[in-house]
Amino acid sequence: MAWIFTKSTLLLLIFKIFISRTAVASDPDILSDFIAPEKQISVDANYFTYTAMRGIFQKPVDKCTTTKATKAEFPVLNGQGVSLAVLQFPPGSVNPPHYHSRATGLFLLLEGVLEVGFVDTKDVLYTQRLKAGDIFLFPKGLQHYQYNYDHNKKAVGVAALGSASPGTVSLPSSIFNSGISELVLAKSFKTDVKTIKRIKTATTTP
Amino acid sequence: MAWIFTKSTLLLLIFKIFISRTAVASDPDILSDFIAPEKQISVDANYFTYTAMRGIFQKPVDKCTTTKATKAEFPVLNGQGVSLAVLQFPPGSVNPPHYHSRATGLFLLLEGVLEVGFVDTKDVLYTQRLKAGDIFLFPKGLQHYQYNYDHNKKAVGVAALGSASPGTVSLPSSIFNSGISELVLAKSFKTDVKTIKRIKTATTTP
Amino acid sequence: MAWIFTKSTLLLLIFKIFISRTAVASDPDILSDFIAPEKQISVDANYFTYTAMRGIFQKPVDKCTTTKATKAEFPVLNGQGVSLAVLQFPPGSVNPPHYHSRATGLFLLLEGVLEVGFVDTKDVLYTQRLKAGDIFLFPKGLQHYQYNYDHNKKAVGVAALGSASPGTVSLPSSIFNSGISELVLAKSFKTDVKTIKRIKTATTTP
Amino acid sequence: MAWIFTKSTLLLLIFKIFISRTAVASDPDILSDFIAPEKQISVDANYFTYTAMRGIFQKPVDKCTTTKATKAEFPVLNGQGVSLAVLQFPPGSVNPPHYHSRATGLFLLLEGVLEVGFVDTKDVLYTQRLKAGDIFLFPKGLQHYQYNYDHNKKAVGVAALGSASPGTVSLPSSIFNSGISELVLAKSFKTDVKTIKRIKTATTTP
Amino acid sequence: MAWIFTKSTLLLLIFKIFISRTAVASDPDILSDFIAPEKQISVDANYFTYTAMRGIFQKPVDKCTTTKATKAEFPVLNGQGVSLAVLQFPPGSVNPPHYHSRATGLFLLLEGVLEVGFVDTKDVLYTQRLKAGDIFLFPKGLQHYQYNYDHNKKAVGVAALGSASPGTVSLPSSIFNSGISELVLAKSFKTDVKTIKRIKTATTTP
Amino acid sequence: MAWIFTKSTLLLLIFKIFISRTAVASDPDILSDFIAPEKQISVDANYFTYTAMRGIFQKPVDKCTTTKATKAEFPVLNGQGVSLAVLQFPPGSVNPPHYHSRATGLFLLLEGVLEVGFVDTKDVLYTQRLKAGDIFLFPKGLQHYQYNYDHNKKAVGVAALGSASPGTVSLPSSIFNSGISELVLAKSFKTDVKTIKRIKTATTTP
Repeated sequence: MAWIFTKSTLLLLIFKIFISRTAVASDPDILSDFIAPEKQISVDANYFTYTAMRGIFQKPVDKCTTTKATKAEFPVLNGQGVSLAVLQFPPGSVNPPHYHSRATGLFLLLEGVLEVGFVDTKDVLYTQRLKAGDIFLFPKGLQHYQYNYDHNKKAVGVAALGSASPGTVSLPSSIFNSGISELVLAKSFKTDVKTIKRIKTATTTP
Repeated sequence: MAWIFTKSTLLLLIFKIFISRTAVASDPDILSDFIAPEKQISVDANYFTYTAMRGIFQKPVDKCTTTKATKAEFPVLNGQGVSLAVLQFPPGSVNPPHYHSRATGLFLLLEGVLEVGFVDTKDVLYTQRLKAGDIFLFPKGLQHYQYNYDHNKKAVGVAALGSASPGTVSLPSSIFNSGISELVLAKSFKTDVKTIKRIKTATTTP
Repeated sequence: MAWIFTKSTLLLLIFKIFISRTAVASDPDILSDFIAPEKQISVDANYFTYTAMRGIFQKPVDKCTTTKATKAEFPVLNGQGVSLAVLQFPPGSVNPPHYHSRATGLFLLLEGVLEVGFVDTKDVLYTQRLKAGDIFLFPKGLQHYQYNYDHNKKAVGVAALGSASPGTVSLPSSIFNSGISELVLAKSFKTDVKTIKRIKTATTTP
Repeated sequence: MAWIFTKSTLLLLIFKIFISRTAVASDPDILSDFIAPEKQISVDANYFTYTAMRGIFQKPVDKCTTTKATKAEFPVLNGQGVSLAVLQFPPGSVNPPHYHSRATGLFLLLEGVLEVGFVDTKDVLYTQRLKAGDIFLFPKGLQHYQYNYDHNKKAVGVAALGSASPGTVSLPSSIFNSGISELVLAKSFKTDVKTIKRIKTATTTP
Repeated sequence: MAWIFTKSTLLLLIFKIFISRTAVASDPDILSDFIAPEKQISVDANYFTYTAMRGIFQKPVDKCTTTKATKAEFPVLNGQGVSLAVLQFPPGSVNPPHYHSRATGLFLLLEGVLEVGFVDTKDVLYTQRLKAGDIFLFPKGLQHYQYNYDHNKKAVGVAALGSASPGTVSLPSSIFNSGISELVLAKSFKTDVKTIKRIKTATTTP
Repeated sequence: MAWIFTKSTLLLLIFKIFISRTAVASDPDILSDFIAPEKQISVDANYFTYTAMRGIFQKPVDKCTTTKATKAEFPVLNGQGVSLAVLQFPPGSVNPPHYHSRATGLFLLLEGVLEVGFVDTKDVLYTQRLKAGDIFLFPKGLQHYQYNYDHNKKAVGVAALGSASPGTVSLPSSIFNSGISELVLAKSFKTDVKTIKRIKTATTTP
């Protein structure tokens, strides 16, 4: 179907482009209270509300599960410099080494116990065992993991993240399943191609 | 060998500290993984752990209570751009209008129900009723409140804040109990000094 | 009237979108000397000139009046991190408590006398009486007021603001006239609904 | 009890100060309402008041004169991202080409007339004639000048600057009187050493 | 030729506008790994590769030549906060005084010798003679120059710049060939119009 | 006159240093031309010069070698937002997967050939073969590697980095040699403890 603009539609389009341009920052912070969505003339309270996690604490999970509310899922976060995630750990489960390239994580354990750790840029490991109500810091860009060492009870936590778009890199898949050549990986990890192949196969199995 | 300062040496030292203080700063972010405390040569995992909230979810409160983990309570947050708070609301309680001058708040309701709202710089109010698992945004610098409208059940939430030092201003006390002259307040609120006095008295009562 | 694009118009439109996108920030500062307006191919010196305040110092005002040159009135300020305002105070007038959510204000008194004050996040009030040529600081996000305590002479000042879009919140209207429920306000200010209603009525009267 | 430093204690202290200096920084903005001076336990309202310009508008000047209130003169500005300056122009006087390496200038003409101009990074000159109440923008890092083309009346203006420490570079002295070798300057300006010497002599004469 | 949109084209256009808006920052850093070009749905490795300098080190130049890879030439740099340039100096050549309004330059000499210098905001000159492998810093916004004082051998260097869009101002042309009136320049440099005219003529000669 | 500290004076001094440390910071950029070293009253041109790499291009290396000029080696870089590194690759050598938590890298190949690659946060690999003069981008926080696939000739490159303190994490050692428990690693990489042990042993061998 062909599409013919009326003049008013076009002006509206141009107006919206202009609005979006002036609304999108330039000082370190945004220059408006919030960034409105492109397709609406006005917003209401629903734009500031995220309901996709409603009831999450009642839902069981069968492996370590991270449920995020970042700019990708909740667009109003654009420019607000913060996001959060709920993490659920069945007994004995691990959240493998990963890092957030754009955010520090501040983790609050709501329930259960966890062993947590991160490695700084001098390769020093900081590891701790947490109880409910404890908080632990994962500095920006540093790899970290969590392990529910209790084999009978689940653990649940909330992570406050200092960016609307934390940029998570999961190391098992980023290294071994992104397509880096086996030769480069074998040289890097000072092992043979056969071992690299074995890890690749294991980590891609769901 | 003992070391005795001459006065001029000491003044030079103080001068240099002063210079360094006013000259300091760097990239928008910190230039290290974390900022170590002043008084220790090295840090261990305890420096990254905050245990003062342990067991908080089991402790009853008799009025709306905010328990914070910010730079003031948890020094490692300095430079990390994030902090968090746990908010507990007995049935029917209100967290009065306030704002964070340095942080957006992203609020996750863990338990119960809440009516929440914020006012933007055009005096538009956005208000919503939340259920457990819902998230609501309070943009940086804008006044907001929470109200547990359920008169039988408590509510509990976590706020992720996009600064290590959010800078909270509670409006009832900031306006009416900071010592601004009653004449100025009466002119500002277009009321009489008697009404101002009455509000001052009420809001200072614990 | 229908509107048909010629190809060159469309390419121009796409080109301008692209330009605006690459021109609009990402480093803490903008990545260009200035941000050009959307609808013009080139700019001249008028784009950098704001004449809407011409002659302002000769015009009398009948109540406290703030005249702004921010991004909203003077679009070239987008990305420049600064704006200003002229404040005029008839004898005895008050600029009620307010704050700028995105900017520190640096106030220079040009003429007359003023009592000024601000309240920090610990509820400490700092208040001062200024004479012509004096400067006073209102830190970012903190509520402040000015009062021309001279009942015979006007006062005039200029505020330099450290953001192109300071985000002003006027507390009388933001709290009492934005639609926050009277019940929540009464509980917050520990007063009765009747007093809240009275303040609301008074502050909405022009 | 008196306290005597051992040398090693002192070195440790100095070392720690040094560490703190290089490690410091934080969010893009400061993490406190204001930065208190080093030598005082508490501050009062005088710390936020700058009185050294009191009466400035009544004082005559015999050449173009810029009077600043920046971090250097008014320490509380540290971290507040704003400063200001009063500029006074006797009839016919010029404020020579200069730029602020760390701040945009927003200039408000209070009295008289001025010709102003700046040059962007493409060597395009934007020039304008201002009347009282007019505002003109000098973008960050771009050279600009002001010229009171009225040969009978003075002009007075205020510049709002988007940094507490604008970093002013005056081009006549920076280029010709900083000690750059005459050979390099002659090659750069494609002139002879004799002309360079003549400009150097002229520009150093008070 | 007229141009009729199909609906899908229009939706794609709107979609791209939306993408660009949400991708273009607001936190001090960008909120994505990189900013994709406007006109493509996906990018491949070529988008991250700049080949226009291939073979540059083998090509002779007949005057001081700066070859840049900034946002203007290499769009993926948008939002990445870094750029670079290759500088080539025939024997005896000078890179005249200039500054980068948005970036510090960190200069590495690859081959030959150079005399370099910069002037700080207090008009202090820092000058040095470099050998191959030496690095020198030119702080942001401060004017600097390089001079190959060897009259027989070329010099080659690389400058790392801390912004994707450094904003270079060349002082000879910016001051003398941008159209600032000769009267203003003569008053500024305390010389006569005749000398100003002579420098203008010389510096515009290629 | 000698000066003896009382203990309380000293504690006060230390307390104030601590306060200043936690309170400090400022604009996103530094508020001075450069940050002077703590121990000197004045600086000269040597402070801006780094000579530790002199002659580096003539020195052979027997494995992939990165030589850095960052804040750690060259203190004047503090606050300047840029650093650089020289990378030398013997024939067939690999620079294993690593990332810079605080900087984008812009890589210029000076000599030889290289295969380079990085993985974004969606696990997409971008890989390219470079020739001398080519430039490639490694976005901030994303893991990347370089491989000199020529088995006869060395390769040499320069990386411009958009932070004074890039914060490098080398993944082989960070994951496998920082002390993360073998159990957690085996669960994370879905392999057995024996394979983890073998990789650990291999990667720690110099």
